Amino acid sequence: MKKPLTIVKIGGNVVDNPQMLSQFIHDFSKLPGDKILVHGGGKEATRLSEALGLKTVMIDGRRVTDASTLEVVTMVYAGLVNKRVVAGLQSAGVDALGLTGADGHVITGIRRSAKPVDYGFVGDLSADGVNVSLLSDMFDRGIVPVMCAIVQDSNGQLLNCNADTVASTLAMAMASQRQITLLFCFEFPGVLSNPADSSSVIPLINESVFAELKSSGVVSGGMIPKITNAINAINNGVEKVVIKHASALLDNVATVICR
Amino acid sequence: MKKPLTIVKIGGNVVDNPQMLSQFIHDFSKLPGDKILVHGGGKEATRLSEALGLKTVMIDGRRVTDASTLEVVTMVYAGLVNKRVVAGLQSAGVDALGLTGADGHVITGIRRSAKPVDYGFVGDLSADGVNVSLLSDMFDRGIVPVMCAIVQDSNGQLLNCNADTVASTLAMAMASQRQITLLFCFEFPGVLSNPADSSSVIPLINESVFAELKSSGVVSGGMIPKITNAINAINNGVEKVVIKHASALLDNVATVICR
Repeated sequence: MKKPLTIVKIGGNVVDNPQMLSQFIHDFSKLPGDKILVHGGGKEATRLSEALGLKTVMIDGRRVTDASTLEVVTMVYAGLVNKRVVAGLQSAGVDALGLTGADGHVITGIRRSAKPVDYGFVGDLSADGVNVSLLSDMFDRGIVPVMCAIVQDSNGQLLNCNADTVASTLAMAMASQRQITLLFCFEFPGVLSNPADSSSVIPLINESVFAELKSSGVVSGGMIPKITNAINAINNGVEKVVIKHASALLDNVATVICR
Repeated sequence: MKKPLTIVKIGGNVVDNPQMLSQFIHDFSKLPGDKILVHGGGKEATRLSEALGLKTVMIDGRRVTDASTLEVVTMVYAGLVNKRVVAGLQSAGVDALGLTGADGHVITGIRRSAKPVDYGFVGDLSADGVNVSLLSDMFDRGIVPVMCAIVQDSNGQLLNCNADTVASTLAMAMASQRQITLLFCFEFPGVLSNPADSSSVIPLINESVFAELKSSGVVSGGMIPKITNAINAINNGVEKVVIKHASALLDNVATVICR
């Protein structure tokens, strides 16, 4: 029987909102067992870019990251947001420790090819790049790693990543040692069968249900890559993926994706 | 016989200069044994403040830190500079891990009283606030902690500190377990008897030599608090303090302060 590990991902809408963040930190501190928090921060990066007169270019929801933008996201994700979350967790009694992938080479990525689209300093990840042994040592000490979506390549070049991808990569890398619950928190209580009705949460999705939901058009747009990623994680050893509202971490309302 | 530990402090002039930083990282990677790097970054914090239209106020060389300035120093020290140094060290084969005082509550400080001067979110430190056990575990794993001068108080409030003070506090805290060399790197090859002559390095200073140097006026200005801090560290268990040029980490030219 493998020991459980919960990996929680929160987005920019939570870390940017003092009230939501405070509620989330309280709830996260109550989650039992070993855990990792992965956070975004894109909204604040865009604001800092604007204040510095840098243009934000997004292609398919991904930030094009030139050298100046890499400095901005490093400042915002690894500095401003990461330390706000770490200090908040410490005050709630959680022994949080903030990390980029460079710290203790906890995640090494590969710079994405400039073709077909040149995203600049953007990294792709695989489970092989995760320093599982360092994370295990941290859990042994009672430390809760708080990860932002900056990694490095094997030459020490920092790279901008997607926080969802960081969370699912960590989940797949730890799955050989741990029984993983991967929890994506967002602004809805789960995957909805009717986007206008927040009570229409689909409780359980597996590969065949997902195929039906796609073909009937119930699930569309940005939810398709999210669920595809979740199914991929399940197919790579992750026990279950949970999609739920960031303000309801301890509630049972959620979409669970499993085998 | 206690195991040696070297604590090196570099200032903003090194981390801000790609060529000096690259030379320093190469030299630092060659230092044998367990080590900690403490860095500043004030020049870049001042530049970011200017770019954001924030006024930088310094009193007696200390940055007055209001809420907006605290965000700036957190972004620059804990984000931009810390991750630049960590990634550089990783590429040189050093398993660096960046930390503020909040991470793993490695240093807990106390917010400085608003009287006689209100410096805002500025912290004072004592050796009691250092999490010696976490640092020891990191050394056991071969990790090199890279610390910036941001700490937290016991309520999770981030506080701006002085990097010299962080280095000497860590040195005094670790002195019960380790034989400490505290190395302050700056823009001169040591304490000079003639500021115009870089070959006039005073090789050895102890408490009585320091008293003579002060009364004769050979040492004055900003060197007085630097050496006073060094003598304080020596009187609190630190084996020796070395003051030398950041570009000559592996050379023997230096001022050594000891008992």
